[in-house]
Amino acid sequence: MAKTNAGRFFEDYKLGDVIVHAVPRTVAEGERALYHALYPARHALYSSDEFARDCGLEGSPIDDLAAFHVVFGKTVPDVSLNAVANLGYAEGRWVKPVFPGDTLRSVSEVIGLKQNSNGKSGVVWVYTRGFNQMGEVVLEYVRWVMVRKKDLDAPAPDTVIPELRAAIPAEDLLIPEGLDFTQYDFEQSGEPHRWGDYEVGEKIDHVDGVTIEEAEHMMATRLWQNTAKVHFDATFRPDGQRLIYGGHVISMARALSFNGLANAQMIVGLNGGAHANPCFAGDTIKAWTEVLDKAETPAPGVGAIRLRLVATKGGEPFALKGEDGKYAPEVLLDIDYWALMPM
Amino acid sequence: MAKTNAGRFFEDYKLGDVIVHAVPRTVAEGERALYHALYPARHALYSSDEFARDCGLEGSPIDDLAAFHVVFGKTVPDVSLNAVANLGYAEGRWVKPVFPGDTLRSVSEVIGLKQNSNGKSGVVWVYTRGFNQMGEVVLEYVRWVMVRKKDLDAPAPDTVIPELRAAIPAEDLLIPEGLDFTQYDFEQSGEPHRWGDYEVGEKIDHVDGVTIEEAEHMMATRLWQNTAKVHFDATFRPDGQRLIYGGHVISMARALSFNGLANAQMIVGLNGGAHANPCFAGDTIKAWTEVLDKAETPAPGVGAIRLRLVATKGGEPFALKGEDGKYAPEVLLDIDYWALMPM
Amino acid sequence: MAKTNAGRFFEDYKLGDVIVHAVPRTVAEGERALYHALYPARHALYSSDEFARDCGLEGSPIDDLAAFHVVFGKTVPDVSLNAVANLGYAEGRWVKPVFPGDTLRSVSEVIGLKQNSNGKSGVVWVYTRGFNQMGEVVLEYVRWVMVRKKDLDAPAPDTVIPELRAAIPAEDLLIPEGLDFTQYDFEQSGEPHRWGDYEVGEKIDHVDGVTIEEAEHMMATRLWQNTAKVHFDATFRPDGQRLIYGGHVISMARALSFNGLANAQMIVGLNGGAHANPCFAGDTIKAWTEVLDKAETPAPGVGAIRLRLVATKGGEPFALKGEDGKYAPEVLLDIDYWALMPM
Repeated sequence: MAKTNAGRFFEDYKLGDVIVHAVPRTVAEGERALYHALYPARHALYSSDEFARDCGLEGSPIDDLAAFHVVFGKTVPDVSLNAVANLGYAEGRWVKPVFPGDTLRSVSEVIGLKQNSNGKSGVVWVYTRGFNQMGEVVLEYVRWVMVRKKDLDAPAPDTVIPELRAAIPAEDLLIPEGLDFTQYDFEQSGEPHRWGDYEVGEKIDHVDGVTIEEAEHMMATRLWQNTAKVHFDATFRPDGQRLIYGGHVISMARALSFNGLANAQMIVGLNGGAHANPCFAGDTIKAWTEVLDKAETPAPGVGAIRLRLVATKGGEPFALKGEDGKYAPEVLLDIDYWALMPM
Repeated sequence: MAKTNAGRFFEDYKLGDVIVHAVPRTVAEGERALYHALYPARHALYSSDEFARDCGLEGSPIDDLAAFHVVFGKTVPDVSLNAVANLGYAEGRWVKPVFPGDTLRSVSEVIGLKQNSNGKSGVVWVYTRGFNQMGEVVLEYVRWVMVRKKDLDAPAPDTVIPELRAAIPAEDLLIPEGLDFTQYDFEQSGEPHRWGDYEVGEKIDHVDGVTIEEAEHMMATRLWQNTAKVHFDATFRPDGQRLIYGGHVISMARALSFNGLANAQMIVGLNGGAHANPCFAGDTIKAWTEVLDKAETPAPGVGAIRLRLVATKGGEPFALKGEDGKYAPEVLLDIDYWALMPM
Repeated sequence: MAKTNAGRFFEDYKLGDVIVHAVPRTVAEGERALYHALYPARHALYSSDEFARDCGLEGSPIDDLAAFHVVFGKTVPDVSLNAVANLGYAEGRWVKPVFPGDTLRSVSEVIGLKQNSNGKSGVVWVYTRGFNQMGEVVLEYVRWVMVRKKDLDAPAPDTVIPELRAAIPAEDLLIPEGLDFTQYDFEQSGEPHRWGDYEVGEKIDHVDGVTIEEAEHMMATRLWQNTAKVHFDATFRPDGQRLIYGGHVISMARALSFNGLANAQMIVGLNGGAHANPCFAGDTIKAWTEVLDKAETPAPGVGAIRLRLVATKGGEPFALKGEDGKYAPEVLLDIDYWALMPM
């Protein structure tokens, strides 16, 4: 088995390690079409070159979450092949839109380590950046995962827990060069609601639901070259179920949120996120959003809106946590992000 | 719920209303490849840039039905979200081929209204046009749907039923600029049969069958950004079944008709169509065609042929209607269209 | 039924017949993206334009197996529509990489015939070549199939069995023009193992597994315009199962072999292959490889490696044949190919 990748175990990570992830990937019109086939994505900026040009961009970018998934997928063989749990995300920023023809690659740095008290596993924090073919950063984020130890006798590393901000301050968000919403076409975007129409604390039930199929989540996950066994091999888990890649739920929920947030066009920040419960084929995903914050930006006509997006499988509208403070069993995802919206 | 789209009800339509549908869409090589993955499409003009150029076009267009689905999909949130039934199509014309890179948008006009005698619903006729990024019409058609009333006390509108022709006269069909079948390569197209080989009244059993999967019809329907709940949410209907978008059956039947009609290359007219019975995952779709009419065209080597295409799920070959004049239960689709064929 | 293609029967083939297969096909970025969605394909040369350029190519080619499937798919209506069994492949050579935008077509010559002793069927050998739009050969291979006779009284042809080499000698392999692995980036390719690290006789268990879905194999098979009924129509076989196109298993196994053979980048020869047992939806495919041979090539830094790739559905690692010399029931595929690897 010497030639195959068994993945890293907790004791294989050292603070400051820089991991250059493999398999660069050129993304193009094919990935864009597949994103539309896999998710009910309708945000106009990602659907129409004309609409994107009228907003000051060179053309319609690859969906921000597709860019995230490609960058993330590359890290899986090095970061989460032996992960027991994907614990969280923080300080995510989309730095530059990805356009068809761009080639992406990923690099991660180990920025935190903490062995669990049971001595059998530990938490690893990585700071990951995605680059395009010009060497420009397109995306950066921190995630942390719990990873098994292989050698239980390996000494525990010094505990280092990185200081992470609960949310990216609005003034640190990066607005794509040239973005201008002053000529924004609300008729073509699908909804009349603009930045000023949303209030902090407002909740929106996105109404629609999508029942998930095995073929779809596997195609999506493979498209991002995330090949973790657990998503593909029905014989791998004792229950015979394939665990759906958490990013599939993120993209599904975001696409469903079009209905009520059609003008929350570009994602620019990922403040945090939790995969509350596992998702399996046959689940019907619905989504709701709470407006957490709003801010102006220096770009013409462009406002920032901070949104909590929750995905559920059935259950009551606006389901979140029980009296015990734990996620209700029907909650799949709880994510906190910044989007850009016309003012 | 104020921010989400609840769709229009019967009383929301006024005669002469012009509805500009949202979310323009750029279609490209990705949509073309997906069309080939989702349907057994083999018509050479839509498969090969070389073949299309040899027929006088600039390259291989996006499949005519894919163009139809994109234009149609945009109308769903405004026209059929609360539709009880999709009643019919008429006077459809493909005006200009759609090429990779084109951006499509749709506009509809309300041209007919008739409240049902029960006072709970009514029929709405819309005339829809699809435009490309140059503002040129690429497609036009009339469809009518039965829509629920929300406010049962809303007054009935004056009844206006548009006069619709049973079929587009051949002389009104629009032939794509430059189309020339005088150098048509019958070896590469897949069949030797030309326009002169088909007789009015002739019936063709297309022999092949395809069993439908949930993942496929959902991917197809999403690709056209048709996000009507009923196609995606298994919890929406009391029977737990997802209703398959009628256009998926149209495309499947048309692709199956390659076997016997490989040279019926371009669709230029939609005279009428009925979704006779609902289609569900697990159904095996077969198709047969009857030649209804033939006509010459001014384009070199190009003949027009009017075809009735019927899709069934099992049953006898050539199944259509029972003694009571109603569609047999295995009939899914009965559509009447004009295609262009080498003479 | 006169207009539909019933396929050829054994008595329809004559030695020396040249069959020009129908429906040329332009392949582009869409096919590339779909290949990544359908298979866990990660070989860097087919994932990144940048990586491919650094290896001396003009850009990332369409996967070699995708090119094979397109060329093969065109032959199905003429060669294997009435085939009882796909018996073997030999002397396959990839002659020129296929790039997005290329249009492929196929031509076959009947090079062998042998009626079976039962008089009801016979074996047909065809030599197939795939061409691009410049008329250049991109791929050639021999395959032989067992085909039913329709007219049992048709006289048996003279038996001609072509002489086929057990393997392409390394010196007859064609190396893509410009290919140069001297600057090969092992960090980006995903594994450090180079040509010199593999030993003849070495076996590699590729570890990962993928459970197959109906929607996926049908999408893949349609994408190659292979429309043989048996893959699509659940009512066609008495057992109600759709037989999975053997090429789907080849592509799945090859993609799984990335884990251990990430640097076996380009496929240049197909020495032989057997579809040992049928594959159905629900099977979980795994793969293992044995190194059969190694050779140097004239291209800078480029070595050739001959690999036996075996796909199984469960069972013991390295499953192959039983004591009776027959394939174990869990073996799906046994294929013998040449790949190019950095030295």
